[in-house]
Amino acid sequence: MQGSTINLTRGVPPTDAFPVEDLIACGEAALRRDASVLLQYHRGGYPPLREWLGAQYGVGPEQVLTGNSSLEVFSYIIRVLVGAGRRAFVESPSYDRSITLLRRNDAHVVGVPLQDDGVDLEALETELEAGAPALMYLITDFQNPMGATTSLEKRERLAELADDQSFWIVEDAPYRRLRYRGEDVPSLWSLAPDRVLHMSSFSKVLAPGLRLGYVIGPGQVIAELFEWAEHSHIGPVLPTQGMVYEYCRRGLLDVNIERLKDLYRPRLNTVVAQLNDQIPQAQWTEPDGGFFVSGFLPQGNHIVDLRERAEEAGLKLSDGRDFFPNPADGNRFLRIPFCSLTEAQIVDGVSRLAGLVIR
Amino acid sequence: MQGSTINLTRGVPPTDAFPVEDLIACGEAALRRDASVLLQYHRGGYPPLREWLGAQYGVGPEQVLTGNSSLEVFSYIIRVLVGAGRRAFVESPSYDRSITLLRRNDAHVVGVPLQDDGVDLEALETELEAGAPALMYLITDFQNPMGATTSLEKRERLAELADDQSFWIVEDAPYRRLRYRGEDVPSLWSLAPDRVLHMSSFSKVLAPGLRLGYVIGPGQVIAELFEWAEHSHIGPVLPTQGMVYEYCRRGLLDVNIERLKDLYRPRLNTVVAQLNDQIPQAQWTEPDGGFFVSGFLPQGNHIVDLRERAEEAGLKLSDGRDFFPNPADGNRFLRIPFCSLTEAQIVDGVSRLAGLVIR
Repeated sequence: MQGSTINLTRGVPPTDAFPVEDLIACGEAALRRDASVLLQYHRGGYPPLREWLGAQYGVGPEQVLTGNSSLEVFSYIIRVLVGAGRRAFVESPSYDRSITLLRRNDAHVVGVPLQDDGVDLEALETELEAGAPALMYLITDFQNPMGATTSLEKRERLAELADDQSFWIVEDAPYRRLRYRGEDVPSLWSLAPDRVLHMSSFSKVLAPGLRLGYVIGPGQVIAELFEWAEHSHIGPVLPTQGMVYEYCRRGLLDVNIERLKDLYRPRLNTVVAQLNDQIPQAQWTEPDGGFFVSGFLPQGNHIVDLRERAEEAGLKLSDGRDFFPNPADGNRFLRIPFCSLTEAQIVDGVSRLAGLVIR
Repeated sequence: MQGSTINLTRGVPPTDAFPVEDLIACGEAALRRDASVLLQYHRGGYPPLREWLGAQYGVGPEQVLTGNSSLEVFSYIIRVLVGAGRRAFVESPSYDRSITLLRRNDAHVVGVPLQDDGVDLEALETELEAGAPALMYLITDFQNPMGATTSLEKRERLAELADDQSFWIVEDAPYRRLRYRGEDVPSLWSLAPDRVLHMSSFSKVLAPGLRLGYVIGPGQVIAELFEWAEHSHIGPVLPTQGMVYEYCRRGLLDVNIERLKDLYRPRLNTVVAQLNDQIPQAQWTEPDGGFFVSGFLPQGNHIVDLRERAEEAGLKLSDGRDFFPNPADGNRFLRIPFCSLTEAQIVDGVSRLAGLVIR
């Protein structure tokens, strides 16, 4: 019955979704037109790309810093805004690499429980009584790992709290444009542009190997990040920035995003239907976009044991504990990335999983 | 008499030296052949490039880490090997960005005077009596800013000291292959491969905008750096690594380096002759390669005053103090990058400078 291994661990785009020929053509056109800039040192990123990105948000290029991945940009934000031992709030669960990066930079990470419509505000206000954090890191759209989207009401309250108590919010939005149903919710950044640093990247809407991330924020903070970035790498890799700028300038990004949504939407529908049908005893999230659906398995399951048995059944699973500031909170947590799997693989994978979960 | 401004501040290659069409062709060929790797996440760099680089040094890819610039790689080395407050030795003077990066990571930077044939070993041994540093950062070939090359005798002694007293040496070698006369000296890494991390990049031999740096070292340290790099950016930018790999694989790098040497050699000869001829009162270095010649101006000069007067004369000069751990040591120090200037500009620039220096 068992076919080849199915990997349910990595939130990566499917390799066959990359628009290779368009990227080749755009890379060539950019270098032919602007080699003297793209092959030389340049701080902060390729100026036309910073212009273009700024225009998408209605701000000037002085409010845009690009870097070699948004994770790298986040590392600059941490170094500039968070001192050793200072508190950083994250959703619990949250993106494991962001938690790790904060800890590696000696931040004290505090998890605030995440609900279906965003963080638990009561729990947040209780934490705030002990003092404002240096920053709060949130993935407001189709959260990694939960798939949850923060409601407008909660965004408004978060903006208010950040303003009142003078703390920074880092809004990480790599999945925002991959909405498969429903309507966009205004970004937190648009509600509190003086208190929010809005990060995004081209990894999920184009290709991760480009490692092209960016942050939009108040000019003063961007200037500080700019300086930190300059001292860390002088400037980011540029030929790929030229390639992406040309791709955007030609209007290809919007077309690509529509194509990806059409590719991923049925995969989301299938994974949600299969999970609810075959493992109804678990509580599964119902995301409207992004890369992940997640769930807490019934009592009696433990992720360590489940992963071992899954391995034998040809199924690779993430360790749910990695997404929680307090790892034990993830003992029964399972994140399921669905974008890089075909519908047949999803059906097969969930069926193998169903055979392993203790009801 | 005054023409357009001459810039004697930045150690960058001349823009017209970039092999644009070859890079375009190589970028296209690499992406067409290997898009599924180059556009996806990949830790540590593009595997064929790591293989190729390792082979240049006679080591396997597990001893090679690539990153988005050697400065970025150095930042990982600092985070892994140097704790806050620990001592890091550098040549005095040294590359200003490396000094800054060490200090931004809370290292205590100690300068060891640099002589024509490498660091002053007596001064080094005196410093070592207070204990070994976490690392010693050296630019052994055509040093930035002095142009000095460390002699074989001093390299052997440095290797011995690092071995005996168990400290790391970071050998930064971006200019090594740009030797315009004389014979190569064995790298420090080749003398003490267990104690030396050898860094280099494609910025000076190909193009800085690629931001492609790397480090060769013992497998155990490379593994630690690999992990730190992964937590900082998952992996480096890859399409440019594919481009550079293809460029190397086709044998174009050696051809390009010979072309650059032919371009830069007469510029070095001209700048050295002009300086010794027109400003003989200063002590000028006589480099055998690289990007820089430097000198200490006669008593009575001060770099702050000189820079102001130079600006009025259409001449941009670096602040010599930036290259010294103790800035006052550079009050009369001048670094002159010559690679991106034509011989006519060099003659004009030195002549303007001669009119400003107090004899």
